[in-house]
Parts: sequence; C-alpha cells; structure tokens
Amino acid sequence: MNLKSKRIRNLQTLLAAARGDIPVDILIVNSRIINVFNCEVEEKPVAIHNGIIVGFDHCEAREIIDLKGSYLAPGFIDGHIHIESSKLVPARFAEAVAPHGTTSVVSDPHEIANVLGLEGIKFMLENARDLPIDIYYTIPSCVPATNMETSGTVLDVNKLSTLLDEERFVALGEMMNFPGVVNGIDEVISKLSLVRNKLPIDGHSPYLSGRQLSTYLVGGASTDHECTNIEEASEKLSKGMRVMVREGSTARNLEALLPLVTAETERRMMFVSDDRRPGDLFEEGHIDAIVKKAIYLGLDPIIAIKMVTLNPAETYRLERVGGIAPGWRADLVEFADLKDIRVNRVWKGGELVAASGKVIEETENTQTVIPCKQLEVPSLSNDKLTVPDRKKPIRVIDIVPNQLTTKALILDPTCVNEQVISDSDRDILKLVVIERYSGRGGMSVGFVKGFGIKKGALASTVAHDSHNIIAVGVDDQSICTATNRLIDIGGGQIVSEGKTIISEMELPIAGLMSDRPISELSKQENSLISSSHRLGCVLDDPFMALSFLALPVIPELKLTDRGLVDVNTFNFVSLYV
Amino acid sequence: MNLKSKRIRNLQTLLAAARGDIPVDILIVNSRIINVFNCEVEEKPVAIHNGIIVGFDHCEAREIIDLKGSYLAPGFIDGHIHIESSKLVPARFAEAVAPHGTTSVVSDPHEIANVLGLEGIKFMLENARDLPIDIYYTIPSCVPATNMETSGTVLDVNKLSTLLDEERFVALGEMMNFPGVVNGIDEVISKLSLVRNKLPIDGHSPYLSGRQLSTYLVGGASTDHECTNIEEASEKLSKGMRVMVREGSTARNLEALLPLVTAETERRMMFVSDDRRPGDLFEEGHIDAIVKKAIYLGLDPIIAIKMVTLNPAETYRLERVGGIAPGWRADLVEFADLKDIRVNRVWKGGELVAASGKVIEETENTQTVIPCKQLEVPSLSNDKLTVPDRKKPIRVIDIVPNQLTTKALILDPTCVNEQVISDSDRDILKLVVIERYSGRGGMSVGFVKGFGIKKGALASTVAHDSHNIIAVGVDDQSICTATNRLIDIGGGQIVSEGKTIISEMELPIAGLMSDRPISELSKQENSLISSSHRLGCVLDDPFMALSFLALPVIPELKLTDRGLVDVNTFNFVSLYV
Repeated sequence: MNLKSKRIRNLQTLLAAARGDIPVDILIVNSRIINVFNCEVEEKPVAIHNGIIVGFDHCEAREIIDLKGSYLAPGFIDGHIHIESSKLVPARFAEAVAPHGTTSVVSDPHEIANVLGLEGIKFMLENARDLPIDIYYTIPSCVPATNMETSGTVLDVNKLSTLLDEERFVALGEMMNFPGVVNGIDEVISKLSLVRNKLPIDGHSPYLSGRQLSTYLVGGASTDHECTNIEEASEKLSKGMRVMVREGSTARNLEALLPLVTAETERRMMFVSDDRRPGDLFEEGHIDAIVKKAIYLGLDPIIAIKMVTLNPAETYRLERVGGIAPGWRADLVEFADLKDIRVNRVWKGGELVAASGKVIEETENTQTVIPCKQLEVPSLSNDKLTVPDRKKPIRVIDIVPNQLTTKALILDPTCVNEQVISDSDRDILKLVVIERYSGRGGMSVGFVKGFGIKKGALASTVAHDSHNIIAVGVDDQSICTATNRLIDIGGGQIVSEGKTIISEMELPIAGLMSDRPISELSKQENSLISSSHRLGCVLDDPFMALSFLALPVIPELKLTDRGLVDVNTFNFVSLYV
Repeated sequence: MNLKSKRIRNLQTLLAAARGDIPVDILIVNSRIINVFNCEVEEKPVAIHNGIIVGFDHCEAREIIDLKGSYLAPGFIDGHIHIESSKLVPARFAEAVAPHGTTSVVSDPHEIANVLGLEGIKFMLENARDLPIDIYYTIPSCVPATNMETSGTVLDVNKLSTLLDEERFVALGEMMNFPGVVNGIDEVISKLSLVRNKLPIDGHSPYLSGRQLSTYLVGGASTDHECTNIEEASEKLSKGMRVMVREGSTARNLEALLPLVTAETERRMMFVSDDRRPGDLFEEGHIDAIVKKAIYLGLDPIIAIKMVTLNPAETYRLERVGGIAPGWRADLVEFADLKDIRVNRVWKGGELVAASGKVIEETENTQTVIPCKQLEVPSLSNDKLTVPDRKKPIRVIDIVPNQLTTKALILDPTCVNEQVISDSDRDILKLVVIERYSGRGGMSVGFVKGFGIKKGALASTVAHDSHNIIAVGVDDQSICTATNRLIDIGGGQIVSEGKTIISEMELPIAGLMSDRPISELSKQENSLISSSHRLGCVLDDPFMALSFLALPVIPELKLTDRGLVDVNTFNFVSLYV
C-alpha cells in the first residue's frame, strides 16, 4: 500500500472513530479543558483515537482516564530554544522536558552547525525521531557568526538550500547578522531570499529601533526574542514582529516585558526559553516554569497558556497542534491548579509519555551514530602559553557579571622572568583560545579580569559560536592539564588544579552535548560550579561567562583563536598597547 | 537577469529606501494608523517604496500625501466570496469593490467551474491579473455538487491536483459535501487528502453539531461561513473552526452572530460576504458595509477592522498583508470617521487605485479571451413544454420567501385540452430546466407556486450549481421567447411577455458573468426585478429565488434537468402522485 492510500485509510479510521462506529482508544473524563479558541474552561469528555482528538460526545472507549477535576491544556510548545545549551542530545532533552508538559519545541541547531555543519544538523534530525516530544528545527542562518574566528564549517546559501525540503525545518533560524541585513550584504540577502515566502524568518535584533529596525524588518524577519525592555518590545510588536518573551537561564526578560501582555496583544506574543542549562531544566523546569512564573506575576492563566500553545503553533504553522479540538493532535498536559501549574500527566499524540515528573519510558534513541570528530588539537604544553613582557601596558578583558558584554581595560602587566603571568592577587588571569578543527592548534593568549579564581584553571569546548577550546587559569600547568583532558575525552568542561582534574563533564558529541540523562548532567554541572567556587571563583556561573568570552559579536573586547577583537570597531588589536 | 537575482535586487532597493539612502516613493503624513498588532491608533508617517511599507521614520519622499487627520487602515480582505455572484468578471469585480477599500479577496470559483471546468478556472485566474485588488482562489471541492443534475464538467481529484502548484490557490474550496466527509466517501476523502497539510480546507457545515461536526472537523475543514445562530457559531469556534460571519445579499448573519465577537474570540473570527449581487455591491458596498454595520451595532472599530485584515490574512497565510508594518504590502484604506467608515482613498501596493468611490483607472483586463462555449441547446418550441393530464394530483414546488429551502405540495392540476397548464389565478406556474451542455436539450417540466406572476416568463442561465437554463412562466410562448433569447445571447437573465423581451441582462461569460461595468449590471438588475414585479411577481428578488430551484442539495422539492428531486430522500419522483 502506498503512502497516499495509507493516509487515506488512516483518515477513514479516524472518521469511523469520530462517528462512533468503532470504539475510540481513549476517553479522558472529568477534566476542565483550557479552550484556547474561546478562552473558556470547558467540561467535556475528550475522545482520542490513533493519537488524534476525535470529539467530545463519546461515552465508550478502550481506556477511560478519569482526571477527577484536573485541568487539561494543550501540550506546551517552546517556540525558540537551542537544545545544545541543555548539553543534552535531543533524545535526552526530550526525556528531560516531556515531564514538564513540553510536547513540541522549535530549536535552532546553530551551535552544532558551527562545529559539524550539515553533518551535525543531520545528527540533530536523526536523534530527534520517535521521542516523547516533537522537535522542529530552524535552518541556521549565521554559521559562522563572524569571520574573526575559526569555525568548524561555513554554511553558505547553497548548503542551506539542501535543507529546505526537510519538513521539520519550519523557519530560517535567527538572523543574528542584523548589520548584514540592514546594510544589504549580498550573502545575507541571498539567505533571506532563499526562504522568503516559503518559511518564516526568525529575527534577532537586540536594541534595534527606529529606521534600523524597520530596515531589518523589510528584510523579512517576523519574530524577535531579544527584547530586554518594554519600549523595545512595544516598538517591535507595533511593527508587526511576533515578540517572544525570553526567560532563559541567563537572559531573563519575563518581569520586564510582562506588562506588555494584554488581551489585545497576547496573540502576537509568546514565552520561550532560548537557552536553558541542565541544572535549571532539572531543578526549575522548562516552559511550565515560565508559565507558572507569569501567572504568579499576575498574568491571566489562559493567556499564559495560549502563549505557549496556539501562538507558537501559529507562528511556525504547526498544523492542528496547540489546541484541544477535533482533528488536532492529542498533545495534552494535566495539572491540578491553574494558579500554580505543576504538571502531572503528559500525553503526546494520545500516548501517556510522562507522569509525576518522570517519563514513562527512558529513551532508546541515544545510540544514534554520532558524527563526532575527536578534537583536532595537538597536546598543549606550558611553553606554548608564554607571553613575552614587552614593557608595555596590556589590554585586559573585564567581565561584567551576569552579562554577555565585557569591558576593555588597559593595565600594567605583572611580569616574572620577562614574561607576562597570571596574577591572582590582582585577578588578572591568562585566557587561552585554541582552534580545534584543523589540527594545527592555532591559538591566542590574552588576559581576563573578573573570575576571581586563586588557583587552578577552567577549560571548555563550549565557546560561542565557533566552540573552540577556551581556558582560563592561574598557572600554565593547570591550563595545560584541563586542556589536554578536553582533548583526551573529546570535549566537555573541566576544572583542574596543577596536574589534577578536580571536576569534569564529558561532552563527547561535538564537544557540546552528552548522551547521558539530565540527572547526571545536572549533578556534574553543580560539581563544576562548586569546584570553581572552591578555587575562589566569584561568578555564579563561571562556565557560562567563559563560553561567551570568545564571541566577537558582543562588545567590548573578546579573544578568539585568531587574536584579541575590539568588537566596537570589529578589528583585531594587539595585546600590548 | 534571472528571477532570483531580480528578487534579490528588489530587496536591496527596498533596504536602501528603508535606510533612507534613496528617496522613498511616497510618504503618507498626518494619518491616524489603525495598528492591528497592538490594537492602538498611532500617529506616524508611513514611508512606501516599490509598493512596500518601509518604515515610519522618513521625512522626505518623491510624493508626500497629507491625510489631514484621517484614519489609515490596512486594505480590507474578504475571506470568502464567489465572484460569479456579482455577475461581474474578476476585472470588473475588482473595479467595483476597490473603491470600497477591498484590496484582496479569497474567491471560490465553483460556479464557473461547474460550467466550464478547469478552463473556466483558468479564465478566472487570467482575468484576475494586474487589477486594483489581489484575487486569491480556492480549489473548488464539489463540482458537481450532486449527480442528480447534468453539470458542464466533473472535477475529480486528478483534475484538482493540477491546480495545486498555482500559488494563487490558497485553500481547498468549501467542502459542501458534509455527509460525504462524515461518512468517509472515498472520492471526498481523496480530495481532502490531496491538500491536507499543504493548504487550509474551507468548511461548509450548516447546522452540523455534536459528533457529526467533530467528525467533519476530523476531515480537516478549518473554517465555516454557514453559521446562522450563536449556539452554532459558539460550538464551531470552541471546536477550533475559524468562524466567518457572513453578511451577503441574501444570507445575513451579522446581527445574530455579533454577540459572539469579543476581545477573546475575535482572533478566530472574520467578516465575509459569500455572495453579493450587483445591485447590493453598487448601492450598499462590500466588506466596508459589513464593517460599518458591525461598528454601528456596537462592535469595537479596531476589532471590526482586524476581522477583515489580519484575521483573513492569517487564515489563508497571505504573507505580509493585513497590517501596516515594515516589509508588508502597502495595501491601505483611508477614511475620516472610525465610527462611520466611508472609504475615501485606497492604495494597492502603494498605488492609489480608488478615491471618492471611483477607481482611478478603468480596467483594461476585460478583454481576456473568454473560453465561452455558446449554450449548446436546440431552439425551444411550445410543443416541448406540453404536460399531459394524467388525471392525478401533481407535485408542486412551494417557494419559501427569502429562503433557499422549498416545500413540497401536492395539488390538483389545472388542465385544458388534456394538458396540465400554468394557472396564474392559483399561482401554479410551469417551471422548466433545460440541460445546456450536451446539445441534446434534455429537459424537465414541473410546477412552482410562489412567484405570483400573472403574465409572461422569467428565464436564467444562473441556476445553482450546474447552471442549466431555468425558466418559469404563465404561458409557453413567453417561456420559449425568454429561453430562445438566452440561447441567442449566450446566457443571461430575461423577462419576457408573449413574443416580446421586456428586460434582459446579458451574461455571455459562461452564462454567469458580464464584462460590463457594475453600473450597467446594477441598472439591468434593477430593471429585471422591476419588470418582474410589473408582471405581478411578489418576490423581492425573483431571479435569486429562481436560481436555487434547481439545486437538489437544499430541501424539500427541486427540479433539475433530469427530473423532480425529493431532496429529503435524494430520489427522483414523478410529477404525478
């Protein structure tokens, strides 16, 4: 039987079930249904067959599930997330978020794309099959983010065009190169033109306003998740953008933007998480946590639920998802209290996938063959880290706590034996970025202020957006130990002291993700952070801070494998002034 | 230069205009903008270039248009109309509605499709190019509506599939065969499967409720324009349908359904016209008239405008249309008073297309080659209309004024010379339906009560859905005169008396439409109606009533070219009881 006949037969079966000619699979009774179409709470039995809601007038079923007065909402949808930030492969991510009521996400795989290109994206697609959630993707638009660092790959418009036919791609991923759009850079415009009138284009336009914002919108972007204040969000909303209120692990905009959400505006708004680290996902939750917080802050619960169901579904044109209606997918979430949402049971396509905070079946999809090159980096030795004293002041990156931006300082170096060294008393530490793709081991050494560590080193293969190796340390030996351990294990995050590894998280998949469950990752993350704090680190999340020090699109001074970058002028600058 | 390069160049030009690097074409100043995204009225200049809105921060332009405080709304969109009902070809229809602020319509061409099949649809597409409005179409799903009459063509799923790639088709047209959906008739399911997950499916499900409605929705329909009472509309809304509040020439549901429109529900609702006859369009207006009436009845004006702009655009995924935003098409409507909308100027893609109730340029697109077969009908003579007296009572169709339904009467016939004849004293008149496609002239004769005409005859080639010739008359000569005139002129509507034509409207395009302007059609329509009234007709709109007497899907007794149909049992019945 061909696919067409099969589809027709499936539809015939659904119609028979809807008519009542055959018994339906499931009947959910005694629930209070959140109706996102009329914004009411309705009491009626929900009949489900073959994963589809088939009506509200059935009395018999093979299985009757009594909700005893609990609420039943459409499954939650995260309209914008980077799964890689959870450090979990898609299958493990699904396992982690399904118990929180998430039944669909739209993920931009641009982290792995920077490392492994199309092969990495293919892995994300394959690892996302047959899970307790639906994972849709966007086509990464900005790989690499800049040409001031060495990434694993370049995704040009020809490569991107090969992704257009895969139906799980629902948009062009966030167009971060807003200067490129505004100034009409050919390569950028070609990418926009590739998807125009075919798929939505996700925007990324922090602080853009006035004529610049309008120009960016003429380019075609229709969403934004970078608003940090209400004036910015208001302008973007009024100019037709769908505004995503982001509440991630670091960037938290819910409180600032919530006053903009009203019965009049909510239709064009939604809640997204963007980046959530394992510990947050494990302890705080996912989209459910944002909904809960929004309701706690005073938002009407039904509006809050629409913003994570019907609204993202409409934005990305996910068909018959995001509402409880005949013919729509039976993605459903149960909770007892509308004012304090704690997800109990979760159904995906009519199948119970999670209950009481746990998935029903552990994933079997972690064994997907992983296209993981080992790190192509020669072993690091102390001599490669020497920085000669040139009797000049040096440029030092100054961390701004809890921000992705840094400041540029000019300081006199601390020198010993004609070499500039880390000085933990002054909190000026050596920072190293090592290119990890070519095997040539190209690297830069700079200095950073703000970590506060008094001994040892931290190293990571998570370093936006090219994800080269980045390390910071008080002494060269500790830096070498951490870095060489990363090379040994194929990527991850390390805390070292001298020749000893104090704490580590293995991230063997592209140096970004693990195939272990979230409970382990969360524990390892906690251990990395507490080990860092024991070394004297004063930052809440030192690896998050470290991961952004190589990203030369966020001001003011950054270090890539190719050198120090003055982000204000987009030029390389010397360490010495 | 290939199409792709041209698109990229066009986008580059728009970006330059948005940046302010080149002067924009038009700046509209001193307007009060209806913002459908945040539901506010905003005052800011609107910059337009190459037909696209490029921003709100420009000060200079090649042309500055001062609105002197008038309102500026997105162009109005009629989400469901049959252009053929206006008796105007698309180009003339556009000319008629553009001055009313309509800038886009979604039209189901199922009337011409019944007559001319794919060739008729092709004509509708070609005649719809380069007009002051955008005409989108739906793929007619039900041609013919039944097999109890002879239509000009059959559009099976294979023929329909040839239309899928034409991008002006935005949905499957109203699926009127709701019993076919509910009962899973193969042919119907194949049509639904053809477009599922590609295009929306328009519904048509009058009075459907409960399990039947749910089953119909499992089939995939996502809109409905047939609600006549608020309970029906509420149920459909709650089950995920987008509810179109119809206000046509005959079917008028605005007052009944308006209480359902609230800030919470409006997003899933819109106003549509469905069928508007020329006189109504000319005298009352189009979508503007519905919006105006809704506001008069108490609806918030911004909600009313959203229901004819953003909402239909979202329903049919019309890209960047339906709002005033950067990158969106400059389809704009000006009016002075928000409480009493009278459209002044209308811009389509930045071009002024209408002002003060008139189009700026008369259409040049009426000369499209028309694929119009002449009526394939032999000349009618009195002898073909004889009905022998069989000394039995006869079945008589009883018109219900202002309804499409009829009642079935059983009456003793009036006979002369062994023949059943029309009896104007008893208002029992001969009704004739003549097949007009094969040349064989197959016909049926029956009797109808309710017209009230005392002399003469009416005849028409507009007779839903197969549009065979239908005529009613007091004497056979008048019927022959009217019918033969129709054959001579290739279709239209006629009032005759004896051998004289009293009034006529030529509809040479498929017997349904004219290429003359609306002013002429409206005048002719008025003349047809007043002539009918002079003959004694008691119906407000005798030709509308006549046009539904051959439609065997609406109860209770109808006459097709193949005989009398008892619609309750879907069987042919004899004239004689």
